[in-house]
Amino acid sequence: MSAAPFARAETIAVGSELLALGRTDTNSGVIAGRLARLGIDVIARSIVGDHVGHLEIAVRTALQRADVVVMTGGLGPTDDDLTRQAVAAALGREMHEDAVQLERIAERFQRRGLPMPDINRRQAMLIAGAVRLDNPNGTAPGQWIDVGGQAVALLPGPPREMEPMLDRLVEGRLGARGGEDRTYSRGLKVAGRSESSVEATLQPLYAEWRASEPPLDATILAALGRIELHVFVRSRDRVRAEDRLTRAVAAAAEALGAAVYTTTDESLEDVAGRLLREAGWRVAVAESCTGGMLTARMTDVAGSSAWVDGGVVAYSNALKTQLADVPAVLIAEHGAVSQPVALALAAGVRARCGTQVGIGITGIAGPDGGTDAKPVGTVFIALHTPALVACRSAHFVGDRAVVRQQSVSAALDMLRLALTGHDPVGLAR
Amino acid sequence: MSAAPFARAETIAVGSELLALGRTDTNSGVIAGRLARLGIDVIARSIVGDHVGHLEIAVRTALQRADVVVMTGGLGPTDDDLTRQAVAAALGREMHEDAVQLERIAERFQRRGLPMPDINRRQAMLIAGAVRLDNPNGTAPGQWIDVGGQAVALLPGPPREMEPMLDRLVEGRLGARGGEDRTYSRGLKVAGRSESSVEATLQPLYAEWRASEPPLDATILAALGRIELHVFVRSRDRVRAEDRLTRAVAAAAEALGAAVYTTTDESLEDVAGRLLREAGWRVAVAESCTGGMLTARMTDVAGSSAWVDGGVVAYSNALKTQLADVPAVLIAEHGAVSQPVALALAAGVRARCGTQVGIGITGIAGPDGGTDAKPVGTVFIALHTPALVACRSAHFVGDRAVVRQQSVSAALDMLRLALTGHDPVGLAR
Repeated sequence: MSAAPFARAETIAVGSELLALGRTDTNSGVIAGRLARLGIDVIARSIVGDHVGHLEIAVRTALQRADVVVMTGGLGPTDDDLTRQAVAAALGREMHEDAVQLERIAERFQRRGLPMPDINRRQAMLIAGAVRLDNPNGTAPGQWIDVGGQAVALLPGPPREMEPMLDRLVEGRLGARGGEDRTYSRGLKVAGRSESSVEATLQPLYAEWRASEPPLDATILAALGRIELHVFVRSRDRVRAEDRLTRAVAAAAEALGAAVYTTTDESLEDVAGRLLREAGWRVAVAESCTGGMLTARMTDVAGSSAWVDGGVVAYSNALKTQLADVPAVLIAEHGAVSQPVALALAAGVRARCGTQVGIGITGIAGPDGGTDAKPVGTVFIALHTPALVACRSAHFVGDRAVVRQQSVSAALDMLRLALTGHDPVGLAR
Repeated sequence: MSAAPFARAETIAVGSELLALGRTDTNSGVIAGRLARLGIDVIARSIVGDHVGHLEIAVRTALQRADVVVMTGGLGPTDDDLTRQAVAAALGREMHEDAVQLERIAERFQRRGLPMPDINRRQAMLIAGAVRLDNPNGTAPGQWIDVGGQAVALLPGPPREMEPMLDRLVEGRLGARGGEDRTYSRGLKVAGRSESSVEATLQPLYAEWRASEPPLDATILAALGRIELHVFVRSRDRVRAEDRLTRAVAAAAEALGAAVYTTTDESLEDVAGRLLREAGWRVAVAESCTGGMLTARMTDVAGSSAWVDGGVVAYSNALKTQLADVPAVLIAEHGAVSQPVALALAAGVRARCGTQVGIGITGIAGPDGGTDAKPVGTVFIALHTPALVACRSAHFVGDRAVVRQQSVSAALDMLRLALTGHDPVGLAR
């Protein structure tokens, strides 16, 4: 005789202040995380201002798509607190004053030696058929309303009032309606390829995954310098789900080849650092256009002192010679942004710092400094290890920040490829 | 014969990844800010997953409440990119392939020497009656669709593609439909003070602003290493509004004193760079715990080669001696994280690079390496100019990333204070 499980949820955060500059609705993310663990997907989240008509539409809309609607905020005592009223209107139900709740609110004020302001009576109003959810941390109780096989939960806005109430629901009413099917996911990350090229490679697998039972779902996320594949499966059998995901990710990794740098959520700098430690090598960097960003990103990794020595930022031409022993004649002959200068930076910083690996980067990040022969986005990245010397000539498209970030990611990826026995330049496209 | 102004807007951010993977939708906030300046209120924001039915409902719902609906994301070339299709369904309109757009996408691939994957054709599909919005930074064009007196705008998800497109709409189609009452705002930024100390200083001004007619509204935003004050007023008289804001910000700046580094939205590195240029000085940096982040942040500024020479990242102790002439005995005696070593780094890099200004940073960013005497967060920042030598000893609270970022902001602020005739250490708290 148990009700059907909830599969889809929607959250509505109420309050005009959440639409204004700089305020963030953190409740919806917390709720989504808790529900995911119960196998309930949040399919949409919204923030709606304090307007009874807009809220009513939001509740009606959510009930068209979702099994359970979790609302936060708008349960206070003021004229702006319209959640109760809007939900009652959306459901076509009356409200009544709850004697138990009124007593609790009055007691709360009494404990502080204050008279209960008349407006707080409003917080004792329950929607017909609602179950009162106690709020030990505030005057606003929550409400749980069963609507046929669906449900609406009204929770207070302040996180320290909302979260304990949510936790009790997760253990109780929500937990009881969680799916037997839970969502599991796994992923991999790719460097040096475009989103569409990754998609094209994976198309045949997608088709296979979608056709399998239960189907695997996949999402591609493109960020600067990396593409992420996330594969999801909904299942009631954890072991089997994880086994299927492992095999799916392995198949995707095989199809994508050396462009895959992790299947365990490592960053590119994590991977490069791990490989350097395994090789027993240390790295030093000479940066021009990236101005320290590569060394900064390497040293973002806790414990990176085990494999990074440091290096130089040779932003001016004089410092390229002064700090990394780039012959001035090389700069005069080929220009500061050239393959010979990138190679000399890598060799110079390696020799100066006494490391096994040296990296040199020189380029034109823009917005100025481009020429017809060397437009903005032209970057030379040189790598010098005990095993090889290589230089990639790249043309990145984008503004100054994009060119610099792409250069840093490309350098880390060259290092990774070299340390795994691949051609550090050949794969780049 | 002009159309009625837009009063209410709604934003819809599209993408399951914004719901599931802890990604944040930053676009909606940017859009709300731009629309506010046009006197258009955002009354609701939502995030909807990649599901054509849910998206269709979202669009229909938004058109029940809002005059203009601005959607971001879901315009890519993959099966997950459903915004075009959902909006066409919600409006009951057909789609057609736009020849001009197809040509542009093909050209974009051609410039990179790549064949256009067939799936990218999808990005040339326009909804009937839509105006194409050019996207110089990506393959996905935007679309603007007039729907009676209302409108729907489809913008790409990546902020660097979305924002230029939004700016053109604000100057054009959106600007033409803005309200008579516009929201004007102005602000200032503060370094080296806590949010509560800034609030306490400004309380008397807040009261005065709220009581004035029309009232001024104020918000404080705290970010790592800076506090921002934003003051708002809604008015149909631009000149009067701006005059009131100018006076309000000037009063706040006077109350806060030298901690204010800009009233014109400059970054700390912009200000430091401008002051160095005015002084005719150049800077070099020797970084240990920040690993290149300070130099990277300075060189984020376009044109920074006019005032930054570069420097060294001396992450290992050997490199502190090798690259910045820190006497090994100093390190042995005081430890690498010490005031004498910070001062020696600043003096050493300044002499090596032949700049007027040298900065040295050494500290314990964590998570390991702290001791009772020098816990994680202990950072020494030294500044050496032709006018002064100073060292600040700081204790930052937070994780590795926070300690590093606070160190960089503190160094830039010391530079700013010194260049404006203030004590670079005295103000710090």
